Amino acid sequence: MSRIAPSPFRTVDWTGDAILILDQTLLPARESILRLDDLDALAEAIRSLRVRGAMALGVAGGLGIALAIRTAQRKGGDVEEEARRAARLLAATRPTAANLFWGIERVLAALVDGADSAVACAVGLIDEDIHANRRISSAGADLLESLRPPDRKLVLLTHCNAGGLAAVEVGTALGIAAELHARSRVAEVLACETRPLLQGARLTCWELQRAGIRCRLLVDAAAAGVIAGGRVDAVVVGADRIAANGDVANKVGTFAHALAARHAGIPFVVAAPESTIDVSTPDGARIPIEERSMVEVLEFAGRRVAPADAQGLNPAFDVTPATFVTAIVTDRRVIRTDRGETPNEL
Amino acid sequence: MSRIAPSPFRTVDWTGDAILILDQTLLPARESILRLDDLDALAEAIRSLRVRGAMALGVAGGLGIALAIRTAQRKGGDVEEEARRAARLLAATRPTAANLFWGIERVLAALVDGADSAVACAVGLIDEDIHANRRISSAGADLLESLRPPDRKLVLLTHCNAGGLAAVEVGTALGIAAELHARSRVAEVLACETRPLLQGARLTCWELQRAGIRCRLLVDAAAAGVIAGGRVDAVVVGADRIAANGDVANKVGTFAHALAARHAGIPFVVAAPESTIDVSTPDGARIPIEERSMVEVLEFAGRRVAPADAQGLNPAFDVTPATFVTAIVTDRRVIRTDRGETPNEL
Repeated sequence: MSRIAPSPFRTVDWTGDAILILDQTLLPARESILRLDDLDALAEAIRSLRVRGAMALGVAGGLGIALAIRTAQRKGGDVEEEARRAARLLAATRPTAANLFWGIERVLAALVDGADSAVACAVGLIDEDIHANRRISSAGADLLESLRPPDRKLVLLTHCNAGGLAAVEVGTALGIAAELHARSRVAEVLACETRPLLQGARLTCWELQRAGIRCRLLVDAAAAGVIAGGRVDAVVVGADRIAANGDVANKVGTFAHALAARHAGIPFVVAAPESTIDVSTPDGARIPIEERSMVEVLEFAGRRVAPADAQGLNPAFDVTPATFVTAIVTDRRVIRTDRGETPNEL
Repeated sequence: MSRIAPSPFRTVDWTGDAILILDQTLLPARESILRLDDLDALAEAIRSLRVRGAMALGVAGGLGIALAIRTAQRKGGDVEEEARRAARLLAATRPTAANLFWGIERVLAALVDGADSAVACAVGLIDEDIHANRRISSAGADLLESLRPPDRKLVLLTHCNAGGLAAVEVGTALGIAAELHARSRVAEVLACETRPLLQGARLTCWELQRAGIRCRLLVDAAAAGVIAGGRVDAVVVGADRIAANGDVANKVGTFAHALAARHAGIPFVVAAPESTIDVSTPDGARIPIEERSMVEVLEFAGRRVAPADAQGLNPAFDVTPATFVTAIVTDRRVIRTDRGETPNEL
């Protein structure tokens, strides 16, 4: 169905009684798998971004409920009560990520059919995510091929990491890049480094290198000038939450790329699974934006750069209004926001 | 004439036979003055940004010619020949900075009246720069007071360091902030960190703290969302070169802030001495953009952040078209680009 080669890593997995995660805070220097067999360790791993990215968080959240269920069974606790306690704990870790809540809710809902059903539902999220990402990759590649001239290889610009590392495998924005690469349509991917935590430098470069896709890294601030200079064919990013009207919350910095893409007249495509769409949030103004510790800004790679008493401001996300988005590609549909379509219409 | 307190530092100065510079690569950790008594040391200091910023470069360039003249006199060399050799050496260090060439040319031109005249001209650039910055600060503060409601304290956003550290003293964008602060009109300055070299984090925060102005640091990518959220009253930046039509080359990242300011409907003000205007460059497309080493993007403070084989793209500047600029404030005039005025009309 898709020509994407299987990813050489899986960000999150299930052993039967524990959750395995690839510790992304150590990349690209070290590839280390963590075995998490209690909820507090999982919550810490989510908060400190050892596991991160919208879809991976959805799966991790669901598997967290499965872990709480199996732990309660082993210790003779109340399964339903422990699952609900786990849901509260995990939902508090990252306030912006719609998929996290979605994964948790999916598994909690399955609990009405019993503990084994709920665990099976959680484990099922893994394959579901991989297939959703493959559908997004294929549909996004089709869309970009239709939007750009057929005779040229494309330069794509992306922000943060919407790759296999943000999902279980494959990825959304980088899944599209990989699919276009398989179709011999990619010249290169320009990866924005994504301050403050450098997911672009650490994760996107690593992932594209492994996929054999030519990649160059640039500081986030360089993107607008490079786009305005006519050196980019399309901007492709992921999303952390999409409101009913099509407004998109994604990693801070995304909106500036959307402004530049509009100025240059190139497509700005958002790729995310259907679960990222939160129809209960009418528009972007209603999406809560996580403010992270100012230390992330005052330091760079663990080293203090600002003066001793300096203060910081550190929103983790920004909102790109739907009017700046060409299309939202999900695993079920392509929403042409540039033609006035919105997620809540279908 | 201006209520700005004298700056507590001078970035560049002249001893009679050597150039003193405050080594900005060591800030904010250490305040170290370098004594440079040969041209190669000065060229290295300019290339490695020990002395930086449009106006400081103009003065440093001029003093470099003075240094070459005094050295030639001491060693019995040909003054004119040595001055021209120095001009070529220094002009090759930073290709975008208009002021650098301006400072060099000013002193070379004075050489027709003799060596002492040329040296006096170079030394005169120091006071000239301080006075120009005071006029800019005052005129810019007047402009912003006229553009914003009179009853509120302003939140200003700035990029890189257009402060006293980019001049001899006082500064342009930060000079305006200091003047507004003296008028009790500043709530705070939001300083963008300015990757890759973090002039905002290292220099602007340091300078604002010393001036007693409330400051918060943010990653460059956060600016657009913060501006769109209505949290900023005006963007104020410096410039490295201004074309005849009003297009502005400034530190990479500036253009994204201009796009966001336009989207939010707030003023985007460029503050620079008249010497930054290069009427021989008709528009921004004709301004050469310095591409610096990709190592600046791939590493931080000697620590690798990207994977081993990663490639980078590192333009040091971008161009903001005049149509995105509200006004250009120089030491001689306020050019209302928002009313169609251009630098070459007066």
